[in-house]
Amino acid sequence: MSHDAFIQALAQAHQQAAAPLPGPGFCLLAEQLLNLLFPERAERPLRNADAVAATLGIWQDDLTTLLLAVQTPQPAAELAADCVANLPILRDMLLLDAEAIVAADPAAEGITEVVATYPGFYAIALHRFAHGLYQRGVPRVPRLLSEYAHQRTGIDIHPGARIGRSFCIDHGTGIVIGETAVIGAHAKIFQGVTLGALSVAKHLQGIKRHPTIEDHVVIYAGATILGGNTVVGSHSIIGGNVWLTESVPSHSRVYHRAQIQVTRAEDPAADISFSI
Amino acid sequence: MSHDAFIQALAQAHQQAAAPLPGPGFCLLAEQLLNLLFPERAERPLRNADAVAATLGIWQDDLTTLLLAVQTPQPAAELAADCVANLPILRDMLLLDAEAIVAADPAAEGITEVVATYPGFYAIALHRFAHGLYQRGVPRVPRLLSEYAHQRTGIDIHPGARIGRSFCIDHGTGIVIGETAVIGAHAKIFQGVTLGALSVAKHLQGIKRHPTIEDHVVIYAGATILGGNTVVGSHSIIGGNVWLTESVPSHSRVYHRAQIQVTRAEDPAADISFSI
Amino acid sequence: MSHDAFIQALAQAHQQAAAPLPGPGFCLLAEQLLNLLFPERAERPLRNADAVAATLGIWQDDLTTLLLAVQTPQPAAELAADCVANLPILRDMLLLDAEAIVAADPAAEGITEVVATYPGFYAIALHRFAHGLYQRGVPRVPRLLSEYAHQRTGIDIHPGARIGRSFCIDHGTGIVIGETAVIGAHAKIFQGVTLGALSVAKHLQGIKRHPTIEDHVVIYAGATILGGNTVVGSHSIIGGNVWLTESVPSHSRVYHRAQIQVTRAEDPAADISFSI
Repeated sequence: MSHDAFIQALAQAHQQAAAPLPGPGFCLLAEQLLNLLFPERAERPLRNADAVAATLGIWQDDLTTLLLAVQTPQPAAELAADCVANLPILRDMLLLDAEAIVAADPAAEGITEVVATYPGFYAIALHRFAHGLYQRGVPRVPRLLSEYAHQRTGIDIHPGARIGRSFCIDHGTGIVIGETAVIGAHAKIFQGVTLGALSVAKHLQGIKRHPTIEDHVVIYAGATILGGNTVVGSHSIIGGNVWLTESVPSHSRVYHRAQIQVTRAEDPAADISFSI
Repeated sequence: MSHDAFIQALAQAHQQAAAPLPGPGFCLLAEQLLNLLFPERAERPLRNADAVAATLGIWQDDLTTLLLAVQTPQPAAELAADCVANLPILRDMLLLDAEAIVAADPAAEGITEVVATYPGFYAIALHRFAHGLYQRGVPRVPRLLSEYAHQRTGIDIHPGARIGRSFCIDHGTGIVIGETAVIGAHAKIFQGVTLGALSVAKHLQGIKRHPTIEDHVVIYAGATILGGNTVVGSHSIIGGNVWLTESVPSHSRVYHRAQIQVTRAEDPAADISFSI
Repeated sequence: MSHDAFIQALAQAHQQAAAPLPGPGFCLLAEQLLNLLFPERAERPLRNADAVAATLGIWQDDLTTLLLAVQTPQPAAELAADCVANLPILRDMLLLDAEAIVAADPAAEGITEVVATYPGFYAIALHRFAHGLYQRGVPRVPRLLSEYAHQRTGIDIHPGARIGRSFCIDHGTGIVIGETAVIGAHAKIFQGVTLGALSVAKHLQGIKRHPTIEDHVVIYAGATILGGNTVVGSHSIIGGNVWLTESVPSHSRVYHRAQIQVTRAEDPAADISFSI
């Protein structure tokens, strides 16, 4: 392709590009929302109810403006008002998540620390906000928010995933939760866990492809659980690095059997050239 | 060491430090390049061919200036011109990558979403740009770009790795692809996959230490494939969490055998004190 | 909850919020410290000893000011002076870490590249700084710094972890090292390794919950090692994706036994519909 032809091809692509999404604007709004709901995160808490009301009003206006740039099923102003009306429930849900993290992690000093610094809290907070927009049929923005959280935390939760209350993510790097996953209440999930699809073919769009995790399940680091028909029964424990593609009943314990072998080197010097 | 001696030691280190690399400048250039090639990512698409040509010209000038700060085998202006001349091919390769991601992921809505938000696309895009500089013998900059992409995506591809067309990374957090890895066309790789070195000794610098993955191979989450002599034959499928250090022929399926054991607790209350 | 009641509840939360932590200030200080100690990272090295002394003096003043916002056991000025007095030892430790990375990674070109771009170096550098504050009883700040490093690198080291000299992290995404882990000298740890807790109950706060790794141990990608009583003896090698919850003696090699099965498809066309 000649340089001129390339310029023309690029120009055509730029002219045909979909209306740009105000991505940084939405991410900033999400951050502002967390700071408003959880002053432990804010650099400067608000002084009184008037300041809170004013800040919330500006936030709603900004959200309305940004939503005008997206093709939403509802009018933007109505959608933004809906979001604001839902904030008390969102905040209560997130407080339950933070409490679940504090209860489960001996290293956590309290709600303040979890809300201000834990990536698992950040990821579930952005997910619950993005999931609300996803449920209301807002295109593109939910995924943009989930990728923003993914970039910051290494935790990749598709905004379509349905996650019950008191959800505890610990550490979290490498977690992947797919679009049609369903997770019950009081689940606890460690770093590197995948709740993914068994086979991945484009025609499966719209079908449940990811597992169901019932209440009070614990899944340890690096476990991979796949398939839309896979159900992990309530109160089950899935051990680390397990590869699970079928259902297990309630109160199951799934773990590696005899998976390791320990060899003591007769001649310690031999270790030096050892290769796994 | 006394405070004064420490100050002197630091001052000496500062005086001896290699010419600083304009790191943020190169990362910004990479972002600008992606926005130019893929207006779906840009906040403001360019209006016409003149704007595209002008933007590309400025980009080439900026690249030349930055390359002057690095010891390049070719003159900086010549190298920058080479890069620009190669952009049509780079763009075509990246479109094939984006199409491969769309085709494989039922959750992907289309090229626009993949290009604008998928970390796997971002990582392969920066890799292909960095690999071009690596092939031309540019020091330090390729690795700087790959670490920038690693920081943003959790995907760590050494700029030396050779990756065929229509490469699909899904999710991607925790992927590591080593310097001498070779990957064929139409490969698909999930989060947490390592294509690494078997034994790691400094004298192996320059020798092929990382595996070869042939065409149409799928590697599921968390698989670890090691060694410079390890070849995964075409159309093979490597299951999740597999640890593979030897070659497998074409059309192989490699997976865990009987790796899990399910125990149903007789007394559900016993679960509470259960520890893995 | 009515909108007004929600506003009142938020206002109350804002009024009760703990004094905000100057988080961005501490993160900036940590970056400035690394640039001061390792001019290979700096965009502009300092010209002479006077410039170094002045920069260090300003850094100490800024640290003092920030520490005034935190409830520290020592007076802030005394604590900051202690930190500065400890910098020569910190720098020597970090140089040993960088040298260990260079020695172990055939792809590393030298100290300059490791210090400037390797996330493993960045993570251990921030850890050693944060651990110093943790040992001196500074609240909240150490964890804030470790989460900052976690966000940038995907490497999650609790500031309480005790890590010996010449520590080598390669790649690193997904590594988790718990609060009470103890690691000897010359350890080498790859991406996705967890040194975690066996059972996680809040009342275990303050008890050793994470493993001890003795000198010269190598732990490959994705291994999960759990438990406060688990000791990995010196010179041991832990293979990738291993799940280890008990002690192993010195010079052990722990790896998966017969974990994979290779099936060659009789009819290659059958692969197309294959699902793991």
